[in-house]
Amino acid sequence: MSLLDRTIQSIQPLDEAAMAAARARQDRLTKPPGSLGRLEEISIQVAGITGQERPVIGDKVVITCAGDHGVVAQGVSAFPQEVTPQMVRNFLSGGAAINVLARHVGARVVVVDAGVAADFDPQPGLVIRKVAHGTADMTQGPAMSREQAVQAVEAGIGVVEGEIARGASLVATGDMGIGNTTPSSAIAAAVTGLPAAEVTGRGTGIDDAQLAHKVAVIERALAVNQPDPGDPLDVLGKVGGFEIGAIAGVILGAAAHRVPVVVDGFIATAGALIAGGLAPLSRDYMIAAHDSVEIGHCRMLDHLGLAPCLDFDLRLGEGTGAALVLSVVEAACKILDEMATFESAGVSGAV
Amino acid sequence: MSLLDRTIQSIQPLDEAAMAAARARQDRLTKPPGSLGRLEEISIQVAGITGQERPVIGDKVVITCAGDHGVVAQGVSAFPQEVTPQMVRNFLSGGAAINVLARHVGARVVVVDAGVAADFDPQPGLVIRKVAHGTADMTQGPAMSREQAVQAVEAGIGVVEGEIARGASLVATGDMGIGNTTPSSAIAAAVTGLPAAEVTGRGTGIDDAQLAHKVAVIERALAVNQPDPGDPLDVLGKVGGFEIGAIAGVILGAAAHRVPVVVDGFIATAGALIAGGLAPLSRDYMIAAHDSVEIGHCRMLDHLGLAPCLDFDLRLGEGTGAALVLSVVEAACKILDEMATFESAGVSGAV
Repeated sequence: MSLLDRTIQSIQPLDEAAMAAARARQDRLTKPPGSLGRLEEISIQVAGITGQERPVIGDKVVITCAGDHGVVAQGVSAFPQEVTPQMVRNFLSGGAAINVLARHVGARVVVVDAGVAADFDPQPGLVIRKVAHGTADMTQGPAMSREQAVQAVEAGIGVVEGEIARGASLVATGDMGIGNTTPSSAIAAAVTGLPAAEVTGRGTGIDDAQLAHKVAVIERALAVNQPDPGDPLDVLGKVGGFEIGAIAGVILGAAAHRVPVVVDGFIATAGALIAGGLAPLSRDYMIAAHDSVEIGHCRMLDHLGLAPCLDFDLRLGEGTGAALVLSVVEAACKILDEMATFESAGVSGAV
Repeated sequence: MSLLDRTIQSIQPLDEAAMAAARARQDRLTKPPGSLGRLEEISIQVAGITGQERPVIGDKVVITCAGDHGVVAQGVSAFPQEVTPQMVRNFLSGGAAINVLARHVGARVVVVDAGVAADFDPQPGLVIRKVAHGTADMTQGPAMSREQAVQAVEAGIGVVEGEIARGASLVATGDMGIGNTTPSSAIAAAVTGLPAAEVTGRGTGIDDAQLAHKVAVIERALAVNQPDPGDPLDVLGKVGGFEIGAIAGVILGAAAHRVPVVVDGFIATAGALIAGGLAPLSRDYMIAAHDSVEIGHCRMLDHLGLAPCLDFDLRLGEGTGAALVLSVVEAACKILDEMATFESAGVSGAV
């Protein structure tokens, strides 16, 4: 059996007993029941994911997957393709937003070259799992072969399994890839059935005319390739990206190992659509970081049944929103684990 | 001149030059301009507050102000009044939600007895600035005298000035006081002119009949006292609380010393209404932590012109939402200070 098939089959439902125990404990803590809202919900979800009544978050890792996109030839991005490897180097030297935010929350950053159109020397913090030097232009045919789609997803599985083996107890997904809001919108349209115009936004910053052009490019890619919405690997292969496939793999691998995974923004959620299509149970292991400025993002989250934690008008990617939410998840678990109970603190309950 | 008058007169507008410099720097950092949304806005606000182009957050403190309320005699809360001192002791022994969250974000907790109906031995982490052993029942007359209102606000000013002298560079406000959503709703109704029913919620958890009773109690307090919406000290004195006054003082004192102050939830925002009424410029120094479950909260935030950072369905108080946002503010400042620029990282800009 392939790594992908084994991983999908390993994903189990949440542990209901652990969730019930966590919920009961929340109600004994020195606060009105339910008064910590989303923090309580997250702690109960993590209990279900880990199978522990009082899960403790230790090592945290942001996995930022990078790839390039042949569709940039159609002029869909405000930035040139050379920015992808430049930003990978920025990640590795610690100067990007994701480095700052990961340091702030005490998380490591692991960068994955899933398919950048440039080569990197091996170095700490970089995992080279390059499927190819960028995808093909999806307006001319499939972005990648089905075999490459599987390879991209398995790259993500392999990376997250390595990080979990090194101790990761909480994972965030991130992305880098000039042009990658275009395949993400194409995936959103293919999977949800919504018109491209309803799931396509301005990415790094394009004007109205460029946005109309971007929508037309996505419509052309969908018309040329006819991705099958019932076959996530077909969608990923025809209109996706290598880093998006790798993100799907990170999510599946985390779920298979009962590790919570924070899904960043628009591109990471495109990966989550692929993961959720391949293994519907994986959705229970996802925590949606934020509600991106990209207009299609909330439609994708709705499709997955996920509610975002933050609404900070973010549209950067890299895992930046997810990094902030690593700290929220950790806080939620500490509430469950560290707070006094009414009994232990000698506090009276409701009358 | 009184401490209160001196403090109000010390509050200056934000430093526009520092904000312009911070904004210009944000646009040179290795990300599409504006792509970090709210984080960029917060960093620019903190630049304006501190007068520094690249403010660095050091010592962080949560100031949790506690007081009791005579109006609990009217049966407005699900919890008995003895819980106020019990929770103060819980704060001091480190077992409450605010302790867990403050530890998580690396902040100190300072508890202020502004008017609890019980006495505490002096101990580390507790500042005793008791105005009285709880307010009077505001359905029978004013909750406190005007002199006591000033005393409560000045208690908060004194405490925050002490903390700033000890190094605090970022302050969060919190509250503890059984029954204190009732005076907070009364303040909201008095200041905004909205009917009590539109700004009154379930507090720690009351049913529909109890909620209707609570609204009637607030209407009675407003009818009996006729607080003058143009006179914040009159509002605070007639239908407020000692901890609410102290929170107003913490906000005014922070603003006077150019220190950003994160306003927690419903009760803290009632304090912010008093502070904003006394010194409209103080609003520029406030960062609204979250959008509380209490229905009146968003109306109060609208009145102040503040947008909440988080929407986690919180309704606990103590400073819990504000503690989480301390970390967000610190992250925002680190983005501004620590990220590489396009030039320094050798990354190409938009084409």
